[in-house]
Amino acid sequence: MGNDPPSRFFSAPGSAYGQSGVDIEAGHRAVALMREAVSRSQNAPGLRGQVLSGLGGFGGLFRPEFAGLSDPVLVASTDGVGTKTKVAARAGQYAGLGQDIVNHCANDLLVQGARPLFFLDYIAMGTLIPEAVAEFVGGAAAACQGVGAALLGGETAEMPGVYLEGELDIVGTMVGLVDRPALVTGERLQAGDAVIALPSSGLHTNGYSLARRVLDGLNWQADRPELGGSLQAALLAPHRPYLGAFEALTAAGLDIRGMAHITGGGLLDNPPRVFPSGLGMALWLNSWTPPPLFRLIVERGDLSQHDALHALNMGVGFLFMLPAAQGAAALATLRAAGEQPWQLGELETGQGVQMLGEGR
Amino acid sequence: MGNDPPSRFFSAPGSAYGQSGVDIEAGHRAVALMREAVSRSQNAPGLRGQVLSGLGGFGGLFRPEFAGLSDPVLVASTDGVGTKTKVAARAGQYAGLGQDIVNHCANDLLVQGARPLFFLDYIAMGTLIPEAVAEFVGGAAAACQGVGAALLGGETAEMPGVYLEGELDIVGTMVGLVDRPALVTGERLQAGDAVIALPSSGLHTNGYSLARRVLDGLNWQADRPELGGSLQAALLAPHRPYLGAFEALTAAGLDIRGMAHITGGGLLDNPPRVFPSGLGMALWLNSWTPPPLFRLIVERGDLSQHDALHALNMGVGFLFMLPAAQGAAALATLRAAGEQPWQLGELETGQGVQMLGEGR
Repeated sequence: MGNDPPSRFFSAPGSAYGQSGVDIEAGHRAVALMREAVSRSQNAPGLRGQVLSGLGGFGGLFRPEFAGLSDPVLVASTDGVGTKTKVAARAGQYAGLGQDIVNHCANDLLVQGARPLFFLDYIAMGTLIPEAVAEFVGGAAAACQGVGAALLGGETAEMPGVYLEGELDIVGTMVGLVDRPALVTGERLQAGDAVIALPSSGLHTNGYSLARRVLDGLNWQADRPELGGSLQAALLAPHRPYLGAFEALTAAGLDIRGMAHITGGGLLDNPPRVFPSGLGMALWLNSWTPPPLFRLIVERGDLSQHDALHALNMGVGFLFMLPAAQGAAALATLRAAGEQPWQLGELETGQGVQMLGEGR
Repeated sequence: MGNDPPSRFFSAPGSAYGQSGVDIEAGHRAVALMREAVSRSQNAPGLRGQVLSGLGGFGGLFRPEFAGLSDPVLVASTDGVGTKTKVAARAGQYAGLGQDIVNHCANDLLVQGARPLFFLDYIAMGTLIPEAVAEFVGGAAAACQGVGAALLGGETAEMPGVYLEGELDIVGTMVGLVDRPALVTGERLQAGDAVIALPSSGLHTNGYSLARRVLDGLNWQADRPELGGSLQAALLAPHRPYLGAFEALTAAGLDIRGMAHITGGGLLDNPPRVFPSGLGMALWLNSWTPPPLFRLIVERGDLSQHDALHALNMGVGFLFMLPAAQGAAALATLRAAGEQPWQLGELETGQGVQMLGEGR
């Protein structure tokens, strides 16, 4: 009876988490550790009054603000972070996983032009480590604040005999909102449109099984000047959000016709997900230099250019696609917002992604 | 690079699932197997036009129908099914897990009076078994149809080195809708209110670690007349939904003041989650006879009455709390709807749950 997953609905004091039959002392400790961070995420200025607290503990209640929307559309995404969980477990650092999953979800919603409303988390391991749960949820709550989402609830599961000792899995689900006229679908993309890239903050949540395999022989703790720290720190760099960059572009009145979040499948598979039929993309390989961490993985793994671009983001986290005439303004706007954007290529008649140039 | 979790957004043909770098053949087979069931769930009569298909594949798009609602409130819940996954893996039967997680989520939302809008799933294992993924998603899609929810998307994760060989974990997130005036919070509960119970269909998603331990020595395949089949079949009986019963009561104009979904923590911990302070519940132990599966677990585990009621639902799946004067009408209405309800107890001044009688 110690192993059924308890729910955590922070909006309900003395929630199921504490009341469930599960590892109750550990549960209470974890809840006490995380409650404050969660409460902050629920009371962020943009959310005031939207999380209905204390009304029952079986589900999280959220009252969306639809004022000014002509046709509200909800956008939802469930994600995991792959085997980045193994790197975090090896390091005993769990807060970054909370940031990873929240920002991964927020970026997926952003591709449609949606802004986050709320987020729910799931964390499971063979034997509950309350401090790990609290660190993870604390990191998720902080990232939720960063993107204006409420951490509405979650679940902690103790699953002996399912997970290997010391390992864990995490899952996140985010629900966002967009007014249908503002939905970004890629339908209006045209040949010649500029593809503007923003850098990733690291591997994000992709390619960790490959990276762990090829980097296995190295010392992960040693300082590596080219990485600005240890390999472990570079591999655990949290997935960053791109909502702020989107808001800067829309505030400048620019016409974002398509976006892509560079996740599993990399630069080869993700951009075409928003292309209308008959359109492809020219990828200018010499427009950027993949950061040292990617070059290290490619060299040690002896990866072909195709495999590298398919398995890893290679330093490219997110793409904005705009009319060619707005490319320079988009670059200037993003720089003014503190970003380091560049033009990665352009839309062209055809399909998929054509690699041009040698790359660096 | 074969191990990053791909997204599955069924509304986007050729979605990230197939396009990700992951075990692409297996992924395609799984998607082909499940696509039809998912499509049925998205095109159920009540949902027509609410799932926006083919508009980008990074997030699932849902257009809620708010007509007639004065103050729409979204209710969300993320759940797992605990180590019921181990029983399913041992049996090689995965469809029931899809029903379990969808109905578990729907029942959690129902406690607040919310009806399901959409559901997203997550399934992870060390090595992807496409048929298991397809069976699970097919079961989830069918259960979504049953409660009027769209299966909007999901994620399949291959996580070598995280899960034990042959084991898996599943997670579900459901978002529902309720008009704020119709929100059921328990605030209006009064001493004397009748507590009407509906039977569970089995252990639902609770107490499997306990059950597996105490039943370990028995033959799970042998037919057991008292269980109406094998122990394995009884343990895998899917978690049932209670939405239809709720709709029958509301259609009859009855005043549902509180509900409880009997999950982890059983009859002792769940009802109080909706009690206002100063109110408790008298639990009439002799009002029902726990089904044979529960008696078997209690006997072999030598469980105290308290532990049994805390670890297992003991045959009670869901509670409706109404004014005493409406108790008889509620029972008649539920019977007319094909249910087998009984009065399990009543609200009283005090707190928590008081066990009255010896039980059977």
